[in-house]
Amino acid sequence: MSEVETRNPHSQLQGQLARVGELLRRQHLVENLAHRQQGDHHDLVESLVHRQHVAELQREIDGLHPADLAYILEALPPEERLEIWNLVKADRDGEILLEVSDAVRESLLADMDKPELIAAAEQLDAEEIADLAEDLPEDVLQELMHRLNAQQRERVQSAMSWEDDQVGAIMDFDMVTIREDVTLETVLRYLRRLKELPEHTDKLFVVNQDTVLTGVLPIRWLLVNDPAKDVAEVMASDANTFHPEDDVAETAQAFERYDLVTAPVVDANGKLIGRVTIDAMVDVIREESDAEVRERFGLREDEDIFASVWKSLRNRWAWLAINLVTAFVASRVIGLFEGSIQKLVALATLMPIVAGIGGNSGNQTITMIVRALALDQISPTSAKRLLRKELGVAVLNGLIWGGVIGVVAWLLYRNVSLGLVMTAAMTLNLLLAAMMGVLIPMTLLKFDRDPAMGSSVMITAITDSGGFFIFLGLATLFLI
Amino acid sequence: MSEVETRNPHSQLQGQLARVGELLRRQHLVENLAHRQQGDHHDLVESLVHRQHVAELQREIDGLHPADLAYILEALPPEERLEIWNLVKADRDGEILLEVSDAVRESLLADMDKPELIAAAEQLDAEEIADLAEDLPEDVLQELMHRLNAQQRERVQSAMSWEDDQVGAIMDFDMVTIREDVTLETVLRYLRRLKELPEHTDKLFVVNQDTVLTGVLPIRWLLVNDPAKDVAEVMASDANTFHPEDDVAETAQAFERYDLVTAPVVDANGKLIGRVTIDAMVDVIREESDAEVRERFGLREDEDIFASVWKSLRNRWAWLAINLVTAFVASRVIGLFEGSIQKLVALATLMPIVAGIGGNSGNQTITMIVRALALDQISPTSAKRLLRKELGVAVLNGLIWGGVIGVVAWLLYRNVSLGLVMTAAMTLNLLLAAMMGVLIPMTLLKFDRDPAMGSSVMITAITDSGGFFIFLGLATLFLI
Repeated sequence: MSEVETRNPHSQLQGQLARVGELLRRQHLVENLAHRQQGDHHDLVESLVHRQHVAELQREIDGLHPADLAYILEALPPEERLEIWNLVKADRDGEILLEVSDAVRESLLADMDKPELIAAAEQLDAEEIADLAEDLPEDVLQELMHRLNAQQRERVQSAMSWEDDQVGAIMDFDMVTIREDVTLETVLRYLRRLKELPEHTDKLFVVNQDTVLTGVLPIRWLLVNDPAKDVAEVMASDANTFHPEDDVAETAQAFERYDLVTAPVVDANGKLIGRVTIDAMVDVIREESDAEVRERFGLREDEDIFASVWKSLRNRWAWLAINLVTAFVASRVIGLFEGSIQKLVALATLMPIVAGIGGNSGNQTITMIVRALALDQISPTSAKRLLRKELGVAVLNGLIWGGVIGVVAWLLYRNVSLGLVMTAAMTLNLLLAAMMGVLIPMTLLKFDRDPAMGSSVMITAITDSGGFFIFLGLATLFLI
Repeated sequence: MSEVETRNPHSQLQGQLARVGELLRRQHLVENLAHRQQGDHHDLVESLVHRQHVAELQREIDGLHPADLAYILEALPPEERLEIWNLVKADRDGEILLEVSDAVRESLLADMDKPELIAAAEQLDAEEIADLAEDLPEDVLQELMHRLNAQQRERVQSAMSWEDDQVGAIMDFDMVTIREDVTLETVLRYLRRLKELPEHTDKLFVVNQDTVLTGVLPIRWLLVNDPAKDVAEVMASDANTFHPEDDVAETAQAFERYDLVTAPVVDANGKLIGRVTIDAMVDVIREESDAEVRERFGLREDEDIFASVWKSLRNRWAWLAINLVTAFVASRVIGLFEGSIQKLVALATLMPIVAGIGGNSGNQTITMIVRALALDQISPTSAKRLLRKELGVAVLNGLIWGGVIGVVAWLLYRNVSLGLVMTAAMTLNLLLAAMMGVLIPMTLLKFDRDPAMGSSVMITAITDSGGFFIFLGLATLFLI
């Protein structure tokens, strides 16, 4: 869908106001709905909406870009969401389902019956159907596959055969291919015979008779070169190509690095089988970084903000349970020193400081390391260096902030030794935090896990238990 | 720089191997350097490198894409980084400086003298110079401005006059403009007379004699339509346009939503003044999400992973200091109940569980809310609904997990009341966590702050102090 097709038929706005206008209208629509929900005269307003406003709403909805409708559907609570969804014309259902988040998609699909689902999916391209497939009921999917032609069916099956994080699962098949032994003039004539070019077409793919990719011809070059030249003279023979088994995150990084808009996908024999486009890569980049934040705190998946309490619980319970275990362990560590605390109750008062600062500092380290790992910036040698640096930062922080808090403890409890133990414990716990902040993500990566996964929960667990043990241990040795 | 210009002259690889080959070569290069640093025979190897390998290295470097070189520079420790940097040909310095992260850029600029800096900057476009300008010494910048022609100087000044997060600061001036009263044939002839088209050109901008934008002509449409048609017949008159004062994050969201590759930027009178491209938007998206993660834990800015210990300290100290204060407050809260702890030391043992689970759960909530706010999905009405949902989740989690830990406490200390207090405290602290997890980011946003800023530090501070107060308070009321 090109941006120039986003025109809203009601809009009399000039181009430069179009965007602002769209935002306003969207806001207005949402407020309307929200207001209705709040109103005292619920029934009256409801009937007004259903008698008068539905027609207006219908017009609004028909005029909105699928992405804007997806945004509105995501921002609305479930009842209003379904009300709007039912007003969306059947032939637009498919593209909107592709735009909404996974969680919202689920809620929309649950509201559709079999014929509606099939009608929606039939509007889509092969890779889009594959994307939707895992959310469709088995019988709908079978019926759908049955209705597709052989090529479409094969493509859907191929796309479904790859993992979600592989290029094969997100590539599309909208390619314009040309031969290298024709002139640019011929290419231009050929393009004119096509009714339209696939979206994002910034280059044509040059293949031989076996569909092996031999080069790419950027449209920019096609336009400025002498039409009498052959494609072979003008084309680039060493474009960036990808394989269906490539990792999408790495592919997205290559798109970022080389400023790509589209790139060909070839099989092991060099045959052209599809293409990747920047819009799919932008989605990958967005999802990757969302996932990183989420996973630090053990949120399993993207949550519909209006998900039921029950669904939210399920999404979050796993790491909370792990957290409960780690908190229990920390508690038992303290339990080992109950005798010391009984004798010097100030220990109970001061111990959370040691644990807390350690946790925060460890989280800072882990944040930096996870990012560097994602960008592939850490080699075995530099890892050692990084660890040394983090330990250096930890020692200094420990001496400075541990010193400050040590003085405070001394003044509060009139006990110099207690202050010294505090400073020492802070420094040691910060060293532990730095070490684990480097090692946890690198270990997760070594075992092929996402280095961000639950990293925040883990580092906090270690700096809590470790901090209590170090502080209470030192106190027991030197003060009791 | 088009991807097809990324060709490495040494590479005899087929297109489909190009990417893999590049990665390998890069790896090899890094390992070489890393190995040298580690070697026992440091001097020997060093001399070998300097006698034999420099020529080879030079060839490698010359063959690398600027983005790949930037990647290598970022992944190398300071000494090696500068060694490689000195091998980079002067005319490539500018584009590489634009590719590296801010922190690494600083380290590279520090190594260059005035003539080198000027030579590097002179290679760049106006908006690129503006991007670099804030890192350049004042005298270099003045000399540079002096050397530019009037148009260039005006563009640089204009770009520098916008904030970093405004479209004006990142737009470029590489536009192809046409008139609407000419035929497509004329446009095609005109393009052919240009030596090359600006990168990412997916549409031509149609302007009138006052340079007011009247529409856009996608190249795709230019290619498939009858050359005898007028531009006015074919062009889209309502493309997405942006203003220089627009927020870049919102602009990036529009690019994502409408799958844009380029878009025109117009002033208040509708005059075309520049364009925004997808590669700049991809950088914005990446930076936004990096910043979100960083700011949760109070990392001030992107850190060079090999930054000196001192620089790292400066980057991290502010929130650690805040954390120290909050930890001290939490400690004083416990101090209020030292008498109770003296009587029942189990309280000291169990209290971190209440605080820890609250912190983790609050972080889960805040993560979700920050994300929804970034996507603009929360309206005043839905905020109330969200709060209700989060409180619902908190009550259930409190009863379930608080119940579990209550039973454990009961069994451990043979004290039913202690178990009940534990369950009640967990539930209340989770409610506090949920409430603050919703309110903190929304409040920050209301005061125009980044909702992610230090949010993790703040929620943990509240659930710590709150958790201790609730638990020890309840215990003092009912158990002591």
